[in-house]
Amino acid sequence: MINAYAAKEPGGKLESFEYDPGELGQDEVEIEVESCGLCHSDLSMLDNEWGMTEYPFVPGHEVVGRISKLGSQVSTLKEGQRVGLGWHSSYCDKCNTCLEGDHNLCGSAQMTIAGRHGGFADRVRAQSTAVIPLPENINPDVAGPLFCGGITVFNPLTQFDIPPTAKVGVIGIGGLGHIALQFLNAWGCEVTAFTSSEEKQKEAKELGAHHVLDSKSDQALKDAQGRFDLIISTVNVKLEWDKYIATLAPKGRLHFVGATLEPLDIGVFGLIMGQRSVSGSPVGSPATIKKMLDFAALHNIEPVTETFAFDDINDAIARLRDGKAHYRIVLKHNK
Amino acid sequence: MINAYAAKEPGGKLESFEYDPGELGQDEVEIEVESCGLCHSDLSMLDNEWGMTEYPFVPGHEVVGRISKLGSQVSTLKEGQRVGLGWHSSYCDKCNTCLEGDHNLCGSAQMTIAGRHGGFADRVRAQSTAVIPLPENINPDVAGPLFCGGITVFNPLTQFDIPPTAKVGVIGIGGLGHIALQFLNAWGCEVTAFTSSEEKQKEAKELGAHHVLDSKSDQALKDAQGRFDLIISTVNVKLEWDKYIATLAPKGRLHFVGATLEPLDIGVFGLIMGQRSVSGSPVGSPATIKKMLDFAALHNIEPVTETFAFDDINDAIARLRDGKAHYRIVLKHNK
Repeated sequence: MINAYAAKEPGGKLESFEYDPGELGQDEVEIEVESCGLCHSDLSMLDNEWGMTEYPFVPGHEVVGRISKLGSQVSTLKEGQRVGLGWHSSYCDKCNTCLEGDHNLCGSAQMTIAGRHGGFADRVRAQSTAVIPLPENINPDVAGPLFCGGITVFNPLTQFDIPPTAKVGVIGIGGLGHIALQFLNAWGCEVTAFTSSEEKQKEAKELGAHHVLDSKSDQALKDAQGRFDLIISTVNVKLEWDKYIATLAPKGRLHFVGATLEPLDIGVFGLIMGQRSVSGSPVGSPATIKKMLDFAALHNIEPVTETFAFDDINDAIARLRDGKAHYRIVLKHNK
Repeated sequence: MINAYAAKEPGGKLESFEYDPGELGQDEVEIEVESCGLCHSDLSMLDNEWGMTEYPFVPGHEVVGRISKLGSQVSTLKEGQRVGLGWHSSYCDKCNTCLEGDHNLCGSAQMTIAGRHGGFADRVRAQSTAVIPLPENINPDVAGPLFCGGITVFNPLTQFDIPPTAKVGVIGIGGLGHIALQFLNAWGCEVTAFTSSEEKQKEAKELGAHHVLDSKSDQALKDAQGRFDLIISTVNVKLEWDKYIATLAPKGRLHFVGATLEPLDIGVFGLIMGQRSVSGSPVGSPATIKKMLDFAALHNIEPVTETFAFDDINDAIARLRDGKAHYRIVLKHNK
């Protein structure tokens, strides 16, 4: 039996929950969970915001742990190996999208916390493709958030071949944005943090921003017209997007990794006149996760985390809900 | 003096108009106009739809003719050479955008019909960079529309490195779309024409479409879900864009070359989940125009045109206004 933490209803408290995972699939592994990040999408799922949550619901999709069981066909991982598991727990490996290396866009990809149980547990299972070895020189205690928050902001850099000469802005300096600043700085880019929070301005610079732009100031946005080759938006609120598009250089791109429920409401002239793009992307493929981990290890990039014991899981959730997490929460077993 | 056709007020009839072009600039040439395409943006400018028209207004930005005068510093063109002139009549040649070869995005680029007089005239002037030699094996009588309509739909193919293996849709089979179908077919792509007009379905196939999709049919759009790597929209009306975005394959792009005044109103989830892009672009750079002309010459690509004498210019305008042009109108001097 697997001992997990589950909510019985939308927005409910997490409680002890035991389930039988059945027989281990031939291409599956079982991970003994050491720690697991708490991501904002765990909350969205807990609250059934996206209408696809099944209860009892076990959150957790930023898992770090060691492989405790190996399916009979798994040849790329070994028992005892330290690994991570993110948003996806399996891919079909067979569709054209997977064959092209874009597993994260696979129409049959299984989400770790939808239609199955996630990583807030002592053990969790996943298909071998979705389980990525953690490089030795990454601190496992804080690595969990790389597997969802980290890969989400790293993915656009590889997907769009962003050159180190690019001028890049990051909207929202929170769970995703604070990792984006670190990646972009190490990538060689000129990095600007868009933030309306004064207290975050200093921290943004410590995390790698060369400049900070007060996104509450219309004048600051005007002064930045035509400046950015790429802006990554990590926020989930509606902003006046045309004002941000005006800060893009010719051929610039406004890229969404944070989802707003409201439509984007973007003028087509701003796109046409500057040959600009607006786009989005979800997490990243296993190959890109591996690249990200190597890059993070080389450049000592770490999520800034607060650690909670799994026993205090509801306190952790309350803290994230209140917007107080700084910047990312990781849950650990008391071992 | 240059003898031109000008409107004195928004939406006014074109009448004979004479102006003194002054001294020829060192980097300018004068073109003796043989023919000039009539583009929908000539109408928008005539009506001052974009609020930047100056009267007397001389339309015409799809010029074909021969060089009759050469500025003292022009070394790349010669007298008597047959050339074309499109939407831009000069670039700064100096800004970063020009230096990178993206002259069409130059912030100081001069438009042929804004703040100066266009090609509905016996002669017209332009900076040498903006004047492109016409290859010998292109029929000059129909080439005019390549310099605005043609380059507008050709440009995205080079800018986004569209591979011949791409599946591409074209929304709107009119002045721009009918050239797009020809380019895309020759490019090697699997081409689908989106049209709500039954009579255009047969013609679309003759022009190079492998498939035709009835864009009035919700079912047809549903059946096409996830199919297209690129959709080029040439229309200037608001459609239900999210339905078209759903027809994009993972990593697909919806690209606007037709401008709608209403905002795009696009859901961010459709972009994020499929890592899709929405973008726009205006005409193309001189280097891209040259590439386009060579490609058109090699593949016998020609705009489908109706020819009017310059003396019948107001009839031509009325026909375009009524949506009757099939597909592009070219004005010729009675010589």
